[in-house]
Amino acid sequence: MSQAKEMNNAPQWTIKMADGTSETLAPREGPVRKAWNCLVRLLSQFVLKIWRFLQKAWSLGANDPRKVVHCLKVGTALSVVSLFFYMRPLYESVGKNAMWAVMTVVVVFEHTVGATISKSFNRVCGTILAGFLGLGVNWVADKSGEKFEPWIIGSSLFLLASAATFSRFIPSVKARFDYGAMIFILTFSLVSVSGYRVEELFALAHERLSTIAIGTSLCIIVSMLVCPIWAGTELHNLIVRNMDKLSCSLEGCVIEYFDGSAEGGKSEPIKNLQGYKCVLTSKATEETMANFARWEPAHGHFNFRHPWQQYLKVGASLRSCAYCVEALYGCICSETQAPESIKSHLASTCLRVSSQSSNVVKELAKVIKATSKSSTIDSVVGEMDDAVKDLQSCLADLPKLLLPLPTPEVSGLEKAERSAASLATTPLLDMVPLVTSASLLIEITGRIKGVVNEVDELADLAEFEPADQENSKHNQPTNKIAMQKQTEEGTQKALERV
Amino acid sequence: MSQAKEMNNAPQWTIKMADGTSETLAPREGPVRKAWNCLVRLLSQFVLKIWRFLQKAWSLGANDPRKVVHCLKVGTALSVVSLFFYMRPLYESVGKNAMWAVMTVVVVFEHTVGATISKSFNRVCGTILAGFLGLGVNWVADKSGEKFEPWIIGSSLFLLASAATFSRFIPSVKARFDYGAMIFILTFSLVSVSGYRVEELFALAHERLSTIAIGTSLCIIVSMLVCPIWAGTELHNLIVRNMDKLSCSLEGCVIEYFDGSAEGGKSEPIKNLQGYKCVLTSKATEETMANFARWEPAHGHFNFRHPWQQYLKVGASLRSCAYCVEALYGCICSETQAPESIKSHLASTCLRVSSQSSNVVKELAKVIKATSKSSTIDSVVGEMDDAVKDLQSCLADLPKLLLPLPTPEVSGLEKAERSAASLATTPLLDMVPLVTSASLLIEITGRIKGVVNEVDELADLAEFEPADQENSKHNQPTNKIAMQKQTEEGTQKALERV
Repeated sequence: MSQAKEMNNAPQWTIKMADGTSETLAPREGPVRKAWNCLVRLLSQFVLKIWRFLQKAWSLGANDPRKVVHCLKVGTALSVVSLFFYMRPLYESVGKNAMWAVMTVVVVFEHTVGATISKSFNRVCGTILAGFLGLGVNWVADKSGEKFEPWIIGSSLFLLASAATFSRFIPSVKARFDYGAMIFILTFSLVSVSGYRVEELFALAHERLSTIAIGTSLCIIVSMLVCPIWAGTELHNLIVRNMDKLSCSLEGCVIEYFDGSAEGGKSEPIKNLQGYKCVLTSKATEETMANFARWEPAHGHFNFRHPWQQYLKVGASLRSCAYCVEALYGCICSETQAPESIKSHLASTCLRVSSQSSNVVKELAKVIKATSKSSTIDSVVGEMDDAVKDLQSCLADLPKLLLPLPTPEVSGLEKAERSAASLATTPLLDMVPLVTSASLLIEITGRIKGVVNEVDELADLAEFEPADQENSKHNQPTNKIAMQKQTEEGTQKALERV
Repeated sequence: MSQAKEMNNAPQWTIKMADGTSETLAPREGPVRKAWNCLVRLLSQFVLKIWRFLQKAWSLGANDPRKVVHCLKVGTALSVVSLFFYMRPLYESVGKNAMWAVMTVVVVFEHTVGATISKSFNRVCGTILAGFLGLGVNWVADKSGEKFEPWIIGSSLFLLASAATFSRFIPSVKARFDYGAMIFILTFSLVSVSGYRVEELFALAHERLSTIAIGTSLCIIVSMLVCPIWAGTELHNLIVRNMDKLSCSLEGCVIEYFDGSAEGGKSEPIKNLQGYKCVLTSKATEETMANFARWEPAHGHFNFRHPWQQYLKVGASLRSCAYCVEALYGCICSETQAPESIKSHLASTCLRVSSQSSNVVKELAKVIKATSKSSTIDSVVGEMDDAVKDLQSCLADLPKLLLPLPTPEVSGLEKAERSAASLATTPLLDMVPLVTSASLLIEITGRIKGVVNEVDELADLAEFEPADQENSKHNQPTNKIAMQKQTEEGTQKALERV
């Protein structure tokens, strides 16, 4: 410190340059000061990093408070299970093996109820199966004399561990019993190895099983009773959310196309409408959730045997739409753009198709969300089909449009010649992205019909409530008008901007 | 049994019908026979199921023998670690805690070296950190008197377990330290809970750490020395394989389009060319592999700090191509097809574009496979660009083509009129899928350039060997000719079939 002070009091050296400016020479820093500065810099960087990390963690918790609740649930379950160590009667009943109850809670408690039940089931079954097998092998080894004992135990351990490890590669086992296979290996090796030393295997097995039962039942009870997070509900909501995102992207990107191009060719991609990307990447999550959901008991709208696998099919059909939307984005961000006159010819129909098809997807999202069939879905799909037909006839009219309008003063000969000339120079190349977009829109409507079919099947399998006919008769025209109005408004707005 | 026999010997009843046929009446089955038949049926079904399962498992092992090797490795590691129980001096050095070594082997041994190292690191660090914290908390609790002791221990357990559980939700922690956080909770609760009873915590910690060290080092040694499976190499090969699949799909589907349509409109999707679907779904695998690969030491062509993250970017750019290929498939399977005359006009250029672009992808696959830059990549990309330009001018020529050929006998007036009439009836609607396919092909070439850029960056970051200039000068023309020849052959074949 004193050295640093000394330096501050040291005389300053200044150089006057030829051009009149002056430069102060900094005193050469001593090694202590250098090290101090370096340390301060490192520390401040470290603190900043920690601060950012904490900020990120805070926003994570603020965005989804259920995550915080889950953490508190884990803390509670662990505290409860550790009571076994503090309360004398409980401790004496399970002994030192209470450790297994703690381990079970730590390992088995998962975010969703389904995952917790699945892991508990795997743990209990794996332990029981391996325990019995281990006891059997030990008994056989014991009977066959001291010479063969280690060989029998060693080779059975090698064989069973290898076989169980291999079973974890088989997709159907991996999806459901991966953890169970691991617990099987673990328990079998512990039993067969410790059995060689400890004689009281039965007591051990009994204690271990009862502690595991305590741990798993505690986990299941806490995860089901305290703010439960059901994998099934999560999957259900994920599909609904993906449908909403897809319909927004689809409608938004077509509006942007016919709107944004007024300010000149677009070359940078549109960023805030890319919700469809979530649909592209949600396959793994959907599969995991569906796998856990099948373990869950009836809850909310869902029975025990709710057709979760059908959700995967709905998800896959949604993804096939999203692939096309992604290609549509490519077209829309293309640098070559059709002339405004032709664009405006297609604008209203394209906007109608996109808005109607996004209405269909929104209606499907409503169907799934409310778990009740829709009485309006057929009419909405019908409107989408009408819009597609209009778009197709617009496309068919395109060549006619390229001909100049016949003016009465011009003679027949001149007219025909002019039109031929104009056609020979048709900027078809410029029209390609437009035609492609229209064609992709038509393809998307086809794929949306695939989604409609999958949702229909889901509604049948899950026995969704039938559509309220009375209600629908009243509502249908209103809905239709409201929808039409909404569509027209959207189209109008976009057209105004064109 | 005797009852069943009796029944077989019982008299048979036969009825003669009016039309001359006779029918034998089956004796009414007794309950025992019924149950027996039912049991036999169930048993045979069960045996069949087991048989099919075994067949599947066998083919899994036959297709990838490394999986079998992995299982044998796990069996070996477990057998070796169980020696600690059988050999007196080893057993006495670690005592009953040898159980932890067995557990470590079961839990930590993973398919790839990177995953094993990552889990080992997590296990060791989580144990050490939680062990020290647990000792500290126990010491503080011990000093603060018997009244506060359970409260301090209980609340610290609750808080730390909750915090560690929450950290597992943070993406950066989840990707790398998920297992470590779990082990932290596990060890901390075991230490703090057992510390209340057992006084020899230091000895326990020492024993536990040494057994875990034995287990992890055994796993790492076995997984690295016996037929190692490196996550990095797997990622590397996955990307190369995906590139090959994508290029095959791209080339194959265009050939199918111009070839298959000769036999009439296609409505059912092409199945054996859908390799691109693997590209669509490989994101999760790529990310897992890249995460494990960073833990691996230098091996083969790869240094310790090989830019594995760049592989993810290459994968993402490949996927963006695959989305477009998926849309292209949709077009190609579309029911409306362009008239043959127009199709054949575009056939050769479309085939050239697809073949050149698939050549580019193949060349990129070669670059990555050989980890050496390519001297021909620029020329291949140039050829792809030329093909695209040709396709664009073909598209621009399309309207001209729709006009009938001018015949010298026809007067100017007649010619112009006829052309105008033919244009008015141009089946543009039928052409839409063709134009869309062509446009998607052009879009795909654009995205392939994105892949080229990412691979270039990878080559720079990973310091791929420079292209052999001498060799390339000799080879370039030859390569070019060979490639051109190959392309022309493919095109020729397809055209012949059209």
